[in-house]
Amino acid sequence: MIAVHCGAGSHSSSHYGKYNKLSKKACRTGIEVLRNGGSALEAVKAAITVLEDDPVTNCGYGSNLTNEGCVEGDASVMDGKTLIYGGCGAVKSVKNPIHLAYDICVKQLEPLPLGLVPPSFLVGRGGVKYAKAAGLKTVKQKSLISAKALSQYKKYKSLVESNKTEELLDTVGAVCVDNDGHVAAGCSSGGILLKRPGRVGQAAVYASGVWADSFSPEAQSSTAVCTSGCGEHLMRTQLAKVVAEDLQTSVCPTVGLSQSITDKFINSRYLENVTTKLCGALVLHVDKKTGDTTLLWGHTTETMSVGFMRCFDDNPKALISELPTGVPVGAKVTVSGVYGNKK
Amino acid sequence: MIAVHCGAGSHSSSHYGKYNKLSKKACRTGIEVLRNGGSALEAVKAAITVLEDDPVTNCGYGSNLTNEGCVEGDASVMDGKTLIYGGCGAVKSVKNPIHLAYDICVKQLEPLPLGLVPPSFLVGRGGVKYAKAAGLKTVKQKSLISAKALSQYKKYKSLVESNKTEELLDTVGAVCVDNDGHVAAGCSSGGILLKRPGRVGQAAVYASGVWADSFSPEAQSSTAVCTSGCGEHLMRTQLAKVVAEDLQTSVCPTVGLSQSITDKFINSRYLENVTTKLCGALVLHVDKKTGDTTLLWGHTTETMSVGFMRCFDDNPKALISELPTGVPVGAKVTVSGVYGNKK
Repeated sequence: MIAVHCGAGSHSSSHYGKYNKLSKKACRTGIEVLRNGGSALEAVKAAITVLEDDPVTNCGYGSNLTNEGCVEGDASVMDGKTLIYGGCGAVKSVKNPIHLAYDICVKQLEPLPLGLVPPSFLVGRGGVKYAKAAGLKTVKQKSLISAKALSQYKKYKSLVESNKTEELLDTVGAVCVDNDGHVAAGCSSGGILLKRPGRVGQAAVYASGVWADSFSPEAQSSTAVCTSGCGEHLMRTQLAKVVAEDLQTSVCPTVGLSQSITDKFINSRYLENVTTKLCGALVLHVDKKTGDTTLLWGHTTETMSVGFMRCFDDNPKALISELPTGVPVGAKVTVSGVYGNKK
Repeated sequence: MIAVHCGAGSHSSSHYGKYNKLSKKACRTGIEVLRNGGSALEAVKAAITVLEDDPVTNCGYGSNLTNEGCVEGDASVMDGKTLIYGGCGAVKSVKNPIHLAYDICVKQLEPLPLGLVPPSFLVGRGGVKYAKAAGLKTVKQKSLISAKALSQYKKYKSLVESNKTEELLDTVGAVCVDNDGHVAAGCSSGGILLKRPGRVGQAAVYASGVWADSFSPEAQSSTAVCTSGCGEHLMRTQLAKVVAEDLQTSVCPTVGLSQSITDKFINSRYLENVTTKLCGALVLHVDKKTGDTTLLWGHTTETMSVGFMRCFDDNPKALISELPTGVPVGAKVTVSGVYGNKK
């Protein structure tokens, strides 16, 4: 099974169709990898590539621009099989930051001469150089800037009023369990609109953007998580890892996710002076005993765009999850889910 | 009380005097800040500045060089009072990376227009730009390269034999408790010798390089931790945060630190395929009920260089802690400590 999200934020209902269509396309691409015997990690990479290449999402081509008008991408992956993470931050001219994160992840299994340790996290120009040397596609900065991103940049840059921060947050992500029962997670983000150059958000940072663990001995489940929302707050709370840990030992995944986001994000000691607490999490939970697979999403943002597909499905499903009417944004979480093993 | 370390690694005994002298100097500078009513965070910054400015340590001036012959600094701080972290990674021409980390940390308390969120983590050229705008000292790359770093670079660059990786690891750090009982921690590193440009290590990354918490409601203590060793492995295990959490609830800090490093680093699931597990941790532990202050250091490396001073001390103390004879490097931890409240 693979699942993707196109961000937790505030999606205008007139664009629901666009997001759902894109989610489905990414799911189809990911499932194709699994059907051909690929790993969960490879499927996650393939699905996120689709999301990066589309200008609708805030990652890869079409990312939000920094306050200097550039695209700087963050991305990371974690392989539940090896427990290895790879991340890149603030990379300017890598066409698909998720490819760079993937490459950094898998290369850590290969030893280096002189006892040198392969890097797990590369940033900025060094990250771009590494990508070039690894044969990944690098492009001119201009070719990553979409018309929409440029007009948003100009609008907000010249704006002194307005407080629509929610629109400005968007990370995409994917979680997957493969035929061997291994899980993986990945995410990619252009970061907050008008961010400072060099700012790195949760999408790049260990334990904050993604977590995947197929093996934890104490756990009753394999779990993969990717998060979205305000990067700085997701880093302080290390939400991806924390949610995964809480769910590994919780009896009911749905209640567990709701409790985890409430206790460890909304009521977190690390966010005491934050007024609006924006997050979303997409979670894949595989019960070790029964093999039952549950896909869950929870968010405190107005909306979250989700898609999923199982290997036996003819077609993917996609939806925009909405915070129930009357629930204040950033103060309560709504959790929904589907069971993956049943047609 | 303030304590510093000049790295966990393999210090040649002929240089013990140099390290001890420098540790003492850094402690004196930190204590001076406390005596003048400064906070733990300010004292940590001041002490680490001394370590960065000295070519003996692998941070600031005299840092290890990347495989392209450049200095790229990582640093971070965490304030136990606010639980806010600030970090910078792979910054090339900032004279004191610890100043940048400090600035990023304290600026997070000031709100930005448009509901924008202040960054907690800045890297590369964007980090340098921010430093300039914040009025911090930036310098030419050349002026950060010491003669020793250059000769080491040339030696290892041309070397195909040798496996002395231990020499190549070194992060400095400081932990402090101020007169109000608040704790803070900071660290700074030039990273692994011959590292790839853009590589970011634990010294920059949340939860890995430093942790400080004056307030945890369940805890019996305020705790500040800074770590040293192999950055990638310290990130995977998030050693600073993990040690702090373990010590907050342990009855005996010394046993607690030994157990924590053994269970969560040496025997960690996240380091399963790592043969030599190199780490060091400097820990300040303040019992909430009794006010008893314990300073501890633990390391799996051959040596660790430590210094400390209390406000009532006329002189700082410094020492090089050694792994007991016969204990294999990277396989067992040795822990020592002093009690801070007694003369």
